[in-house]
Amino acid sequence: MIQATTNIRVRYAETDQMGFLHHQHYVAYFEQSRVDLMDTFGVPYRSLEAAGCFMPVLSIQIEYLHPNRFDDRLEVRCFLDSLPRARIELRYEVFRGDLMTTKGVSSHAFMDNQGRPMRPPKMLVEAVRPLIGSRDEV
Amino acid sequence: MIQATTNIRVRYAETDQMGFLHHQHYVAYFEQSRVDLMDTFGVPYRSLEAAGCFMPVLSIQIEYLHPNRFDDRLEVRCFLDSLPRARIELRYEVFRGDLMTTKGVSSHAFMDNQGRPMRPPKMLVEAVRPLIGSRDEV
Amino acid sequence: MIQATTNIRVRYAETDQMGFLHHQHYVAYFEQSRVDLMDTFGVPYRSLEAAGCFMPVLSIQIEYLHPNRFDDRLEVRCFLDSLPRARIELRYEVFRGDLMTTKGVSSHAFMDNQGRPMRPPKMLVEAVRPLIGSRDEV
Amino acid sequence: MIQATTNIRVRYAETDQMGFLHHQHYVAYFEQSRVDLMDTFGVPYRSLEAAGCFMPVLSIQIEYLHPNRFDDRLEVRCFLDSLPRARIELRYEVFRGDLMTTKGVSSHAFMDNQGRPMRPPKMLVEAVRPLIGSRDEV
Repeated sequence: MIQATTNIRVRYAETDQMGFLHHQHYVAYFEQSRVDLMDTFGVPYRSLEAAGCFMPVLSIQIEYLHPNRFDDRLEVRCFLDSLPRARIELRYEVFRGDLMTTKGVSSHAFMDNQGRPMRPPKMLVEAVRPLIGSRDEV
Repeated sequence: MIQATTNIRVRYAETDQMGFLHHQHYVAYFEQSRVDLMDTFGVPYRSLEAAGCFMPVLSIQIEYLHPNRFDDRLEVRCFLDSLPRARIELRYEVFRGDLMTTKGVSSHAFMDNQGRPMRPPKMLVEAVRPLIGSRDEV
Repeated sequence: MIQATTNIRVRYAETDQMGFLHHQHYVAYFEQSRVDLMDTFGVPYRSLEAAGCFMPVLSIQIEYLHPNRFDDRLEVRCFLDSLPRARIELRYEVFRGDLMTTKGVSSHAFMDNQGRPMRPPKMLVEAVRPLIGSRDEV
Repeated sequence: MIQATTNIRVRYAETDQMGFLHHQHYVAYFEQSRVDLMDTFGVPYRSLEAAGCFMPVLSIQIEYLHPNRFDDRLEVRCFLDSLPRARIELRYEVFRGDLMTTKGVSSHAFMDNQGRPMRPPKMLVEAVRPLIGSRDEV
């Protein structure tokens, strides 16, 4: 398992008239933590796109357990549990202090710069393999 | 089943550097179509909040089948299939012409203006009941 | 003078905890009305980019006269008063019914697909010239 | 003069199909740096609203000198040059390394929780006065 943690402070612009962090913004928070995760194993998403590989989203699921509010300091944790194949799956947990407020999952394809599906790039798989461990090595 | 259709033209501000409508914005599109659906049966969401009832999101799931792009004219369809109880569940489909590009589901609680859970308001249940039909009447 | 009017209904996702349409979103509303204006004279912004010409923003000014709220129906008017030269300047007015709530100005450059400045494309200038009238013809 | 600096890393969700940080998001970046500035002198914006005082935006002006891109690390500087009176004016500068990419100004009113204009709260004026210095002491 690979993990990264991103600290995010809720912006005023991200609140809604219910007084909560609007549920839309968790999607961008997850994305930000995904970018941080990729830094962790030395393949920044920026460099992946520069090499002609994009990771469009196939699906996303979010469970909102507790609301967050303006100025809250959140910890967004992103997890990669298994080797990327045709798809890559990531998990997310949002904490405010010790309280898990939100969790989610996203699934992504790999796409070249012509918009065609492609295999996960070697640089990504090789960076990830030693960190994921034996679970995928069967 | 109750249904509403919302026409949305993708804004430039909603694109990303992949050249796609960023996947975050479907959450707001779904919300907009939910608001339109509630107009359909005569209980505008605005009036619900004015009466002290809020509908915070409990979960959301989105499947991205095909990307959309700047200036695309989309049809967002929102469906209510069953009577609201402690929760209300809504379904969504996004079409570009005849092509379904995206689909999703959201689940919501009912909350009073003190942030406490409440039953679905009578005005909502009674407006919806005759339109949902016999499926829930067993 | 060339003018276009865009009807926008304020989304819930665009409100903030002050209960207002957050001031950030007027920037996207102006952009949407700019796109509509370009449709008006037959040079959709989409086609301009397809022809390799982009219109990055150089400056923007907004005056917030009255707040708007969730579900408000707004009329965003966009005006082009003079021929594009090295820059193009647009004006905006937002109305809720008869009340002007917001006004603004934006200025844009013309940029080719290598990021270099370019002259306003002929297709744009020629579409606009007959509609702007004598003011610029001295 | 009072100053605060906010570090922001451009999110993917904030890019547009031009490949730039979309110009709308600087409005939220300025707001975030304004919140940081208020922390600096011990009157967090959160506590101001809790005390029944809001700071709605009256006007905003932004000059876009150089574009920013995904993953850029930006430094947003916010400045308060003079004592708040009926209005408070703030200045902003965005740097990428040594390059100033963007600058702006915003002006705000003070509003109570009934939406009525009010004087700047004492807690704010008194926190700010010793830091602004003699310029306003005539």
